[in-house]
Amino acid sequence: MTTNDGGPSFDPELMAAVTDLGKALRELIESSVTTTVDAGEIRAAAAEARAVSGRLAAARRPLTQLPPLDDPAEFRRVYNPVSGIGSALAPPLVIRRTADGVRAEVTLGPAYEGPPGYVHGGMSSLLMDQLLGAAAMAAGKWGMTARLELDYRRPVPLATPVLLRAWITEDAGRKTGITGSIALAGDPDRVLVEARGIFVAPRAELIDSYFGSVTDASGQHRPPRSPTDATAVQAE
Amino acid sequence: MTTNDGGPSFDPELMAAVTDLGKALRELIESSVTTTVDAGEIRAAAAEARAVSGRLAAARRPLTQLPPLDDPAEFRRVYNPVSGIGSALAPPLVIRRTADGVRAEVTLGPAYEGPPGYVHGGMSSLLMDQLLGAAAMAAGKWGMTARLELDYRRPVPLATPVLLRAWITEDAGRKTGITGSIALAGDPDRVLVEARGIFVAPRAELIDSYFGSVTDASGQHRPPRSPTDATAVQAE
Repeated sequence: MTTNDGGPSFDPELMAAVTDLGKALRELIESSVTTTVDAGEIRAAAAEARAVSGRLAAARRPLTQLPPLDDPAEFRRVYNPVSGIGSALAPPLVIRRTADGVRAEVTLGPAYEGPPGYVHGGMSSLLMDQLLGAAAMAAGKWGMTARLELDYRRPVPLATPVLLRAWITEDAGRKTGITGSIALAGDPDRVLVEARGIFVAPRAELIDSYFGSVTDASGQHRPPRSPTDATAVQAE
Repeated sequence: MTTNDGGPSFDPELMAAVTDLGKALRELIESSVTTTVDAGEIRAAAAEARAVSGRLAAARRPLTQLPPLDDPAEFRRVYNPVSGIGSALAPPLVIRRTADGVRAEVTLGPAYEGPPGYVHGGMSSLLMDQLLGAAAMAAGKWGMTARLELDYRRPVPLATPVLLRAWITEDAGRKTGITGSIALAGDPDRVLVEARGIFVAPRAELIDSYFGSVTDASGQHRPPRSPTDATAVQAE
């Protein structure tokens, strides 16, 4: 993630600010789902949140234009809803390369709750989809989810560090088979959720059809393409 | 969702306030992922968001205590991350009963983006998990996800109304098989994503083990149990 002169290929001050806002919004969401203040206080908080929103909405990008910090070739996507450092929806997941794939450790709070005290089953699938895709990327492949299968063996507790892992099991050209799992960080061999996925890189003509109008912040056409060595997957 | 005297079984003023805050936070998240204001403005927005968070954090419930508006027997879960009216993570999905199952229509904004212009593949699985569970609930069954399979046939576009459907395909006591799909609302017969799931109601002893410490806002033990006629699934 550096330019030829060794500097970062993005504005570090903007990256720090976006990181700060993502963190602040996650804290706000956690406060909003756990608060027991009265209706009047909640209404006042909503009004203040609208004022913050108005400040940010003073200048907005169109949907076809990537955020200024993003680079799809480097797979830097700061608002990805699972791993995006600026996304309030994302835990966010920090995904690292391992000898045979990728891993991430995360502790999920009450905003991710399904059954009382446990992570929503669909949240586990959301996390696994991202991990499986990241394993493909770490192996120099890119693809969109074609198939995803999950076996839920035991519930995944909230507020407990969990370990997510994924590794390639089949490399067949544009098609990649990946397996992954969720376990407690403190008991990594006891699988709570197992996932298998098939990711497929679209053919060139489909990429044109799907992403023909995507531009970067400068207006240049920037469709997703195969990852380079400089992907958003971090070395461990 | 009424008490014996016909009134609502929750505080309507608090429900309205929580609904308002959920909406305001969703707008704030959308502003945060589309803004192009400078780093200084983003930092200022983060500081203001922290002040809002502090206001809400003045009184908080512990994780084992359900929110005051929730009733797991009625399956009213206001902070569910897919369908919760108060959850900033949720679109939120409004799920309705149909003749043969459940349906929901939703338009997903840029916060849910995976590949540029399209819904994150894992988000589709999150939505489907909720729909499949709701179909079980609408049939008087309750269960936790045991298995989930998804086939992604075509990408799901952002900013476009999509139709989610689910219906029971197998009713085997504690185990329920459910199928669901995502399609464009304007082209409902062309399936974009197909999902199949198995939901299993835990045995009584597992319910005790999983949910033994769960209480409602008054401190009374309230584990999840089979849905009554008064579930959160709305009649169409």
